[in-house]
Amino acid sequence: MKNIYAIGVGLIGGSLAIDIKKHRPDTVIHGISRKDATLNKALELGLIDEKATLDDIENADLVIVSIPVDATVKLLPTILDKISDTGLVVDAGSTKEDICKVVENHPKRRNFLAMHPIAGTEHSGPTAAIEGLFVGKTNIVCEVEKTTFKLQEKALKLFTDIGMRIRYMNPVEHDRHIAYVSHLSHISSFMLGKTVIEKEKNERDIFDMAGSGFASTVRLAKSSPEMWTPIFKQNKTNVIETLDEYINNLTHFKELMKDDNFEAIYEEMKNTNHIKDILNGII
Amino acid sequence: MKNIYAIGVGLIGGSLAIDIKKHRPDTVIHGISRKDATLNKALELGLIDEKATLDDIENADLVIVSIPVDATVKLLPTILDKISDTGLVVDAGSTKEDICKVVENHPKRRNFLAMHPIAGTEHSGPTAAIEGLFVGKTNIVCEVEKTTFKLQEKALKLFTDIGMRIRYMNPVEHDRHIAYVSHLSHISSFMLGKTVIEKEKNERDIFDMAGSGFASTVRLAKSSPEMWTPIFKQNKTNVIETLDEYINNLTHFKELMKDDNFEAIYEEMKNTNHIKDILNGII
Repeated sequence: MKNIYAIGVGLIGGSLAIDIKKHRPDTVIHGISRKDATLNKALELGLIDEKATLDDIENADLVIVSIPVDATVKLLPTILDKISDTGLVVDAGSTKEDICKVVENHPKRRNFLAMHPIAGTEHSGPTAAIEGLFVGKTNIVCEVEKTTFKLQEKALKLFTDIGMRIRYMNPVEHDRHIAYVSHLSHISSFMLGKTVIEKEKNERDIFDMAGSGFASTVRLAKSSPEMWTPIFKQNKTNVIETLDEYINNLTHFKELMKDDNFEAIYEEMKNTNHIKDILNGII
Repeated sequence: MKNIYAIGVGLIGGSLAIDIKKHRPDTVIHGISRKDATLNKALELGLIDEKATLDDIENADLVIVSIPVDATVKLLPTILDKISDTGLVVDAGSTKEDICKVVENHPKRRNFLAMHPIAGTEHSGPTAAIEGLFVGKTNIVCEVEKTTFKLQEKALKLFTDIGMRIRYMNPVEHDRHIAYVSHLSHISSFMLGKTVIEKEKNERDIFDMAGSGFASTVRLAKSSPEMWTPIFKQNKTNVIETLDEYINNLTHFKELMKDDNFEAIYEEMKNTNHIKDILNGII
């Protein structure tokens, strides 16, 4: 896998490029982006070795697609059209069902591997790319059996080498689970930020009182709307289900408070406290 | 302020003890706690120099009360009864209205200073105490005019020396604002944890998929129910108001998704994104 083409050179694409180059110094990383300014920035930062276009993909040993999931669904068939018989295309999108579906009958389906590296920060773009982002993180691979064995083997070796552990899941299960542990967190954070900002319009000083706890809870509200809108759109049904459950739990908590049932409030928190043990080791 | 009595030697009381001792090596820190095991642990960790009881308070130059806010309301009049004319009692509670009210007519009111250092972690107890917790943090002081000038001057000098900036606010405003930037974050975190844990009962593997974003959003769900139940009880009206607004915002977001209005979803997130600038410098 000497010639690697990164379509999208932001947080995920750029960070993958850094780590792959570090572990495989002889690879050449070619960057592809909608915006030339983004490519120039990636070149300047040393994330990529060369600028390229979609037409160059025929020379690729590996293509890594790390762009918003609506763009992936749109572009993936064209990318697969262009890949050589010995080349592999992987995507790093946060949804998997629509992406797998759009290429399910593509003649080059066996040259595609669907994956979701569970890693990131709230920042975006080439400047957000960091070394070692994937160390100890989970890479969820979907429909592995649909990919040519030799190609999956090479790719999974590469992603294991940069520090990831591989887990296998079908795309429907992936989207249902990830709604709970990732998509819902983002909405809870965005709406918490909104609630406090609305208040702050009338109360200028309120943010002076915010501490590290608030900052931690609202951190994901810094995330890119360009990236997250299509995720919520593609995973609409699952996300609405998680929102229903979350809103019900909040409403129940509020009702307990209204009823002065603070013993039950205590129990609500006590029963959730063991999240400590569950979270141990995640970060 | 040579003899300092710390009532409560957990995260806040213990961390204050560490930093005060560091900046004023000649002070003697006396620890007071409901549980002897807690005091022994604080002694073992070097947070306090000596164990003491409430009856010793007459010898105090400064008493720092860092216990759950219901215990503070209950105990504060007794503590003030015992303080000498030249001694000062401060509290570090997360609510201020009930605490100020319970001593408003106390004959020693001028020997009390109400404050809320906006600092902490999700951990609790003596082992959670850390050095430098208060550096660069805000200490909100309420009804400063009700405290003897010489005593407030000494205390504020001490808290400034350990790195805090002082802000003044009345207790009613404090409780209304802090509901937004602290209390609501804790509930949003606890209920997010609950929502995902409920799901996890049926889906064992879901937490393997959780990343650092989820961990950050749910971090406060590790907080102590013993400490937070009385906070929610004392600040009930304000907290219910913030919950109403938060639930409304989440419900609106859900309705936009149901209506496939993803342009509006994008705007919701875009409009909250400037939380970036607001948060700069908080942590």
